[in-house]
Amino acid sequence: MFAEYFENVRTASPLIHNITNYVTVNDVANILLACGASPIMADDPDEVEDITTICAGLNINIGTLNARTISSMMRAGKKASELNHARLLDPVGAGASGLRTKTAVSLMEEIQFTAIKGNMSEMKALALGSKTTRGVDADAADAVTKDNLDEMTDFAKQYAKTTGSIIVITGAIDLAADAERCFVIYNGRPEMERITGCGCQLAGLMSAFLAANPEDPLTASAAATAAMGLAGEIAHRSMLEWDGNATYRNRIIDTIYNMDGQMLDSGARYEIR
Amino acid sequence: MFAEYFENVRTASPLIHNITNYVTVNDVANILLACGASPIMADDPDEVEDITTICAGLNINIGTLNARTISSMMRAGKKASELNHARLLDPVGAGASGLRTKTAVSLMEEIQFTAIKGNMSEMKALALGSKTTRGVDADAADAVTKDNLDEMTDFAKQYAKTTGSIIVITGAIDLAADAERCFVIYNGRPEMERITGCGCQLAGLMSAFLAANPEDPLTASAAATAAMGLAGEIAHRSMLEWDGNATYRNRIIDTIYNMDGQMLDSGARYEIR
Amino acid sequence: MFAEYFENVRTASPLIHNITNYVTVNDVANILLACGASPIMADDPDEVEDITTICAGLNINIGTLNARTISSMMRAGKKASELNHARLLDPVGAGASGLRTKTAVSLMEEIQFTAIKGNMSEMKALALGSKTTRGVDADAADAVTKDNLDEMTDFAKQYAKTTGSIIVITGAIDLAADAERCFVIYNGRPEMERITGCGCQLAGLMSAFLAANPEDPLTASAAATAAMGLAGEIAHRSMLEWDGNATYRNRIIDTIYNMDGQMLDSGARYEIR
Repeated sequence: MFAEYFENVRTASPLIHNITNYVTVNDVANILLACGASPIMADDPDEVEDITTICAGLNINIGTLNARTISSMMRAGKKASELNHARLLDPVGAGASGLRTKTAVSLMEEIQFTAIKGNMSEMKALALGSKTTRGVDADAADAVTKDNLDEMTDFAKQYAKTTGSIIVITGAIDLAADAERCFVIYNGRPEMERITGCGCQLAGLMSAFLAANPEDPLTASAAATAAMGLAGEIAHRSMLEWDGNATYRNRIIDTIYNMDGQMLDSGARYEIR
Repeated sequence: MFAEYFENVRTASPLIHNITNYVTVNDVANILLACGASPIMADDPDEVEDITTICAGLNINIGTLNARTISSMMRAGKKASELNHARLLDPVGAGASGLRTKTAVSLMEEIQFTAIKGNMSEMKALALGSKTTRGVDADAADAVTKDNLDEMTDFAKQYAKTTGSIIVITGAIDLAADAERCFVIYNGRPEMERITGCGCQLAGLMSAFLAANPEDPLTASAAATAAMGLAGEIAHRSMLEWDGNATYRNRIIDTIYNMDGQMLDSGARYEIR
Repeated sequence: MFAEYFENVRTASPLIHNITNYVTVNDVANILLACGASPIMADDPDEVEDITTICAGLNINIGTLNARTISSMMRAGKKASELNHARLLDPVGAGASGLRTKTAVSLMEEIQFTAIKGNMSEMKALALGSKTTRGVDADAADAVTKDNLDEMTDFAKQYAKTTGSIIVITGAIDLAADAERCFVIYNGRPEMERITGCGCQLAGLMSAFLAANPEDPLTASAAATAAMGLAGEIAHRSMLEWDGNATYRNRIIDTIYNMDGQMLDSGARYEIR
């Protein structure tokens, strides 16, 4: 089912405008190239409208936001909306500082995002005003488990309804929901949390899948999420005794580079609720 | 012929001041260390003159420019000119936004660059005012091929004459020209386009070659360009079945680390027109 | 002796707030994850107090400082002092520009750092007003050797006394001193200088060790320094013929990921003077 969504990325090779943090930006660029898309990073208010105009998708990540880039996010988001481009928000660290929460909320007020992707603590901070985010990581108490799955999928669907956006919540189990349906995705490895920026890379990947599959943003988001998790699984199989998180990071990007739609379909493990 | 140009880098170990984008800055630093040079990154207007003064070369890359760093580029460029240091411009994305094109043009008006390096779409944007740049990549229609080689080498020489700078145009075939002569360089692999920042890395490498070989900037630029392409070829030979663009990136930097002048001379494939 | 200091990091998993340069920030994040800590990067004046409040340690690195981030460093440092969090200063390039020297001095005047870590040229610039720093590297004349070891350990102790901070001076021989005692650490490999950011990575690692071992910052600093050097030694043993600095960088982070307290104790080579 996900195969054609990936193949569409390779065929369309969408140009993605990223306003993202400087911690993981290189990995985001390389995973976009790995999946067949093209990245451009531009964050000055005086050029973001020009840049986003020539792109097919916009990826906004507030991981190292500042006054200048917040202004750029706002301008680029409005222009991308006007042009009906795919636009994704990754509210990194929402709940960890007032500025991050406030910025994410403002962006969501002004821009109708196609999709919003975060961990459960970030999503709860935005939806419920909680402040459990542990830096850029989810609080352990916020984990999606088999026991609370019904409650969590309901939360995702409800928040998708409220926002009008596809909601992707990452964790040991990943959720991708619109108001009606929720993909529950079981791909992934716990070791991925020991790499900085797997979430940022997923945001890049999702932006490319959304841009190349405008007719079905929910399945596009789920396909990208499954692809990232599956890459983590396949990459982990090749890890040798002394390999660690640096090698694992490279192996995951390499795996996306070598993945095709058929591999994704064979490896994706999910249900729809 | 290129051997001594590389050996001069290893011997002189020039300190290179980089005002470059935050996407590929780590790779630029590591390839400078790999070739035997030393990098320093500094982009605040209040320190760039101090920093460039203690360096031998200046590498300006507008890949993630903003108002603050544009001012720093201008100040550093003027100081480097005054001190007669090697100074290179990489007009990343010129033609993709008004700000990028305008900034590159302003820098070229105020600073006499030793060399300017870009892809064909960027160079046409600067020389002819075209806007075909696809983000940070060249438009396919702008490719240098065996069929249009005469026309393209003429363009490079002419633009070198107009600007008074060495002009390096990268692509499947690379050109390095002054007003009289053009090196046509056949090294490289198409997979290099799937790594973010091979062009930025070349700009770093060229800056080191220019700083260590001030008497012949044309050959220095051609040697650096051939070294980068050759590294891409050698690195590609060691790629295994599941390797992708992340591993390839590391392998290219590793190859420069292990390259010497004699290897460069044996592997460089070029003609002079 | 160092074993428990490392194990405390893995147990406590301290959250570390980094205001650091954009050149090596990804490696700093990954080495923090590798040692068992969690990184967050945040450098806007409007959020650094919020962010540092939820962390256990603060790592300030002036490698690509600018007016905005200097203000953030100051605010975050004062808040971390107030909360008695571990706080480290890495005065990258002090002595190479007036702005860097002045900023480091101002930060030290306003904030009582737990530890200050730099190469000998940076430390002399701060302690003695010298300007021998070669970009971000130490001048060769400033090397700590067996011949000048008494003099250098005295300098480190004296500067620890003056500043009230643990002083770590990196080089072929590393020193970690308080006013009374100096660890002289022999771990490490010369090839580590050919990787950008080994010093920045050590600053990240030290911040985690300091945050997890608040009762003994001197030994915590020495343990982190030995761990970094030992990782360089172990990683180097696995280097193959064509490997270079890019692979070496990954291998060092991987080694920290796989290191435990017992390995550190077996491999650490030091004396106390």
